[in-house]
Amino acid sequence: MARQLELHPDRLFPVDAAARDVARVLYATVANLPIISPHGHTDAGWFADDRPWTDATSLLLAPDHYLYRMLYSQGIDLDLLAIPRLDGSPATASRAAWRLFAQNYTLFRGTPSRLWLDHVFADVFGFDVALEEATADLYFDRIAEALGSPAFRPRALFDRFGIDFLATTEGAQDDLSAHHRIAASGWKGKVVTTYRPDGVIDVEHEVFRPALARFAELTGEDVYSWQGYLAAHRKRRADFRAAGATATDHGHPTAATANLSAVEAEALFQRIMGSHWTPAEAELFRAQMLTEMAAMSVEDGMVMQIHPGSARNHNAALFASHGRDKGADIPTRTDYVHALKPLLDRFGGATDLSIILFTLDESTYARELAPLAGHYPCLKLGPSWWFHDSPEGMRRFREMTTETAGLYNTVGFNDDTRAFLSIPARHDVARRIDCGFLARLVTEHRIADWEAAELAYELTNGLVRRAYKIDQPRLAAQAA
Amino acid sequence: MARQLELHPDRLFPVDAAARDVARVLYATVANLPIISPHGHTDAGWFADDRPWTDATSLLLAPDHYLYRMLYSQGIDLDLLAIPRLDGSPATASRAAWRLFAQNYTLFRGTPSRLWLDHVFADVFGFDVALEEATADLYFDRIAEALGSPAFRPRALFDRFGIDFLATTEGAQDDLSAHHRIAASGWKGKVVTTYRPDGVIDVEHEVFRPALARFAELTGEDVYSWQGYLAAHRKRRADFRAAGATATDHGHPTAATANLSAVEAEALFQRIMGSHWTPAEAELFRAQMLTEMAAMSVEDGMVMQIHPGSARNHNAALFASHGRDKGADIPTRTDYVHALKPLLDRFGGATDLSIILFTLDESTYARELAPLAGHYPCLKLGPSWWFHDSPEGMRRFREMTTETAGLYNTVGFNDDTRAFLSIPARHDVARRIDCGFLARLVTEHRIADWEAAELAYELTNGLVRRAYKIDQPRLAAQAA
Amino acid sequence: MARQLELHPDRLFPVDAAARDVARVLYATVANLPIISPHGHTDAGWFADDRPWTDATSLLLAPDHYLYRMLYSQGIDLDLLAIPRLDGSPATASRAAWRLFAQNYTLFRGTPSRLWLDHVFADVFGFDVALEEATADLYFDRIAEALGSPAFRPRALFDRFGIDFLATTEGAQDDLSAHHRIAASGWKGKVVTTYRPDGVIDVEHEVFRPALARFAELTGEDVYSWQGYLAAHRKRRADFRAAGATATDHGHPTAATANLSAVEAEALFQRIMGSHWTPAEAELFRAQMLTEMAAMSVEDGMVMQIHPGSARNHNAALFASHGRDKGADIPTRTDYVHALKPLLDRFGGATDLSIILFTLDESTYARELAPLAGHYPCLKLGPSWWFHDSPEGMRRFREMTTETAGLYNTVGFNDDTRAFLSIPARHDVARRIDCGFLARLVTEHRIADWEAAELAYELTNGLVRRAYKIDQPRLAAQAA
Repeated sequence: MARQLELHPDRLFPVDAAARDVARVLYATVANLPIISPHGHTDAGWFADDRPWTDATSLLLAPDHYLYRMLYSQGIDLDLLAIPRLDGSPATASRAAWRLFAQNYTLFRGTPSRLWLDHVFADVFGFDVALEEATADLYFDRIAEALGSPAFRPRALFDRFGIDFLATTEGAQDDLSAHHRIAASGWKGKVVTTYRPDGVIDVEHEVFRPALARFAELTGEDVYSWQGYLAAHRKRRADFRAAGATATDHGHPTAATANLSAVEAEALFQRIMGSHWTPAEAELFRAQMLTEMAAMSVEDGMVMQIHPGSARNHNAALFASHGRDKGADIPTRTDYVHALKPLLDRFGGATDLSIILFTLDESTYARELAPLAGHYPCLKLGPSWWFHDSPEGMRRFREMTTETAGLYNTVGFNDDTRAFLSIPARHDVARRIDCGFLARLVTEHRIADWEAAELAYELTNGLVRRAYKIDQPRLAAQAA
Repeated sequence: MARQLELHPDRLFPVDAAARDVARVLYATVANLPIISPHGHTDAGWFADDRPWTDATSLLLAPDHYLYRMLYSQGIDLDLLAIPRLDGSPATASRAAWRLFAQNYTLFRGTPSRLWLDHVFADVFGFDVALEEATADLYFDRIAEALGSPAFRPRALFDRFGIDFLATTEGAQDDLSAHHRIAASGWKGKVVTTYRPDGVIDVEHEVFRPALARFAELTGEDVYSWQGYLAAHRKRRADFRAAGATATDHGHPTAATANLSAVEAEALFQRIMGSHWTPAEAELFRAQMLTEMAAMSVEDGMVMQIHPGSARNHNAALFASHGRDKGADIPTRTDYVHALKPLLDRFGGATDLSIILFTLDESTYARELAPLAGHYPCLKLGPSWWFHDSPEGMRRFREMTTETAGLYNTVGFNDDTRAFLSIPARHDVARRIDCGFLARLVTEHRIADWEAAELAYELTNGLVRRAYKIDQPRLAAQAA
Repeated sequence: MARQLELHPDRLFPVDAAARDVARVLYATVANLPIISPHGHTDAGWFADDRPWTDATSLLLAPDHYLYRMLYSQGIDLDLLAIPRLDGSPATASRAAWRLFAQNYTLFRGTPSRLWLDHVFADVFGFDVALEEATADLYFDRIAEALGSPAFRPRALFDRFGIDFLATTEGAQDDLSAHHRIAASGWKGKVVTTYRPDGVIDVEHEVFRPALARFAELTGEDVYSWQGYLAAHRKRRADFRAAGATATDHGHPTAATANLSAVEAEALFQRIMGSHWTPAEAELFRAQMLTEMAAMSVEDGMVMQIHPGSARNHNAALFASHGRDKGADIPTRTDYVHALKPLLDRFGGATDLSIILFTLDESTYARELAPLAGHYPCLKLGPSWWFHDSPEGMRRFREMTTETAGLYNTVGFNDDTRAFLSIPARHDVARRIDCGFLARLVTEHRIADWEAAELAYELTNGLVRRAYKIDQPRLAAQAA
């Protein structure tokens, strides 16, 4: 007999009965607030075209490196999970891959993936039996059937999920056609883009040369000259704002910034455009470009997000066979205090600049990030990120940042996901954990219950809207 | 209607009812023990002259960088908070600054500043309504009125707070006149000094040259020769001991120590006294001076405190306009294992030397500091410091150091504050958190209740007195 | 009147009543499972010869650097604790040393040593009064008496403790005679060895030259040539496997690995064998040898354990007087992401290789180790180690690794001890803490109770057997 699946109404609340009571009351006030998702990686094409998804494997498993990294870590070949190689081979059948996943679903016990998936299974698809080997086919079939119905099309789910704002992320070399199709379609869902120029900034990125060519084409600028290159960024930032963007995003190996003179910056740019740059020069150019991006944000008001500290593509063989974003990115020690100083020396006191900092190195929460955000007007703390977007990770984030940075220098939750169906689950986890944290403050008599209620709203909606300037007037492309 | 202010008797105790019961009982045994404050930054002149304070802003807001750093981080101009610039301008009225603070008091939810201030408001001034915009004037007026009365003079509060021992911190270039006036006054409050020679050791400190000149003047030594410089330290250490000091304090950028030969040390000293030193030489000289100070401590018995790891004055523009100690000091990663080895190679086994280590880098608690203090006879662990002097910070300190260093290699609580009125609040927080930690050990059956009671006393009074040699005979200046 | 000693049945369980109830039920299912001890430092000679131990000091105090490091840290001379100097002097009487220990037993409040010892006292020796000054002689006498009886011989205790598998650790230069005597004796206790070649790999180790000579002698290989040296490792690995070994162990200062060409490796080897190597070359050779050991593990199936990050013999004076392993090893910051890359570039995807990683730097749990183990098929996480083998340390390990690596990329518990009598106590602590952690997951509705029960078994026996290949067929020496 199959095991039951049910989402306990008290899940993730504090264990203690008194604190749990407070958490329950707080959570009730925010559980059904709209979802604001200001940073993520869903595919704008889904909402532009509103085509149905086809099956569980291609929707839930294949795009989610959290899932197949764990299966891979236990010796399961990615080929068997229908994760395509760069050369297109091999094509495992979706159903076989799903069965293998179901057989190994126990591996996820204690992980956030398990929480998110169970939420999707129970809440989005209505399952009341758990996923296991015996129910693999039942799941596969019922999900395929559901996905064929109008209620499971991207736009219908967007509405059903109560999403008020969803930002995708596109490269500087992207033509934003999906966003333009959304705008042209008359659909009222707020799906906006985010300016992510890494591909045209990071000379060590494998897309750099082609991205730069496309960057030139889209802007008509001479991107191989320093002034033309900067002008191209300005044009594309305007394009992105026209497609609703309120923010930029920068995924760099480190948080290094630089503050070179105009002459030095131009000379560095020329070396980067040539073929004899060193890794140190590549790093310095990324560093300088963060400061250039900050300068443009002061001009155009876009919020900057900095996501540093991941050693990308650590598994060389896997990168060769399957390419990037295959679960082989490993966090590294990250310095902020020295790294950000050049940028802060130039813009630290600006009150018209907003930079949201993320980290994969939790040792910086209390030591560096909270003191920085608790001082500099331009700095805010992004939520616990990636591996730390989890119940324990979120608790540590609150425990290690609140006392120094306060709650008002944080920006609410990001789901940061390409797994669209898990968005409600992820926001629900964050709301439960934050309400649990606030409940503990109440139960320890550190804040009053009415203060906790105000804060629960802020962490869910208020701070997010303000931090990402979401209450700004509707922008051109969206209003069109 | 104004919100109520009340201090809940169970605040900061564990949430769990069983552990809370134990904590309550333990706390009752230490709640009213005398306050021993062996490390802090109050102004000895207050107790020398016993002049009344004037208003809430100048007493509570303007000297407390914990408060205005948070307001500044939210874009509030320091000028509006009556924080003076180096050039003296501008003079915001105290009342206007206080109103602005009151309007933004919500920013402190979840921070220790909020706990300390509410304690001061309720317990020291007797408020029963909370601080908010509507009560700003009520607060300002009632505090001004109270401060005008004899009961709110510094010495009266010192007695009311039950302070048994209070150490201030003075530079090597200080003439200790305030301490001499206290001694001459016949007042019986134990207010002693601490020898903090950073200003005459750190050539990168902006006061170095004038401090050195004053150091020469006060000692009559040729401080520009290595032997004269060391002799001047010895003289001043004796002066400080005569003013009650039992300890020295060293706030260095890192924990680096060195163990140079006499010839090397003298050559380095000459470079530092010249005008061509490098930052590396400045660092090496600070490192060597920690070892020299340890050597003098072996001679004269003064306890050494090392406070490393803060990147001071990180905000260049603010340092230029407002000077140091304006909330812009940011902790950095700190190494102890390699940094302290030269000093420990020389004095590690000394049982007549006592060095109290502090950190702003919590990742060193379990990894480096507890193993070091749990081995070397001369090392002890200072309490959680600065940004970590908070409920969560104190819990982490105990959780990450106790299992390796034990409780007997720690030294009780330091308030480390210039905010005199908050001293009882700060000690109260520490007592509550420590009793909560002990209560958890009892509830998990790791220690017996009677052991917890012994330990609660130790953490509050016993260890502090022993670590700082406070039961030593009364010293000359105080006995005069 | 002496204080009572009793082990509370609920010790170390969560404080919250609901979670405690769950923990209690889980613990009952694993409390009496056999002990699998796949990594430790007991003396194989004890089991080979089954001679009685003599007294409390030589059995419990003198071999346990956790104990005397704490006493030493409080200024107690090691001479007074019967810890022998390298020159053999002085010989404090066992009873006097024991009394001094008993007088200072309070120092261990809140430490795991206290938990382990009380368990040994109550459970192994049957004491019902606590150790303190007044009971020192009672303890000393009763322990001596017990040790004289057959029931307290090594093999009898091995059986009484329910040990199913016990691995000791021997150097590559060890002749394994004790293991051979066990095999020849016909005793059925499974005591196996582990291949620890540090002494013949680390040229900075004081035993390097004599160990290498012995290595040559035991293998008949020309260990001063690169090929002969590698062949000698292969032979000794085979010898160790014949004595039951399923694993190797590598205690290096860092986790550095290298992947040199054959030519480079041979040239480096020649420098190491000469007398002009640099510390950087010593490090590179250790790094290269980890990769060579991985290559041999791919051949012969032995599990690799890497224990990096301890600055050994930090106290120079103590090392000179008393030698290594005297409580003066201090953890340091440890990098894994970059350090392991060369080895992983070569073997990262191997599913026939198993490497168990340990750390003394908890900041790497969530940042580096869990992401690495949650991706690479060849990597698993060893349990919290050494200073972190403690209730709080184990909790942090689970909280910081489970969400990213899952529980199935961990390997159960290691006691890692030379204190044989404490083995049941240590495994009991781990079982209680792990059940408490699982109970919290259940109480927060993150996993079901039946899942927790499966996991409790896995963490105690299942994962350990699989990770250390303990269900492999019995090997030659043991089967003989």
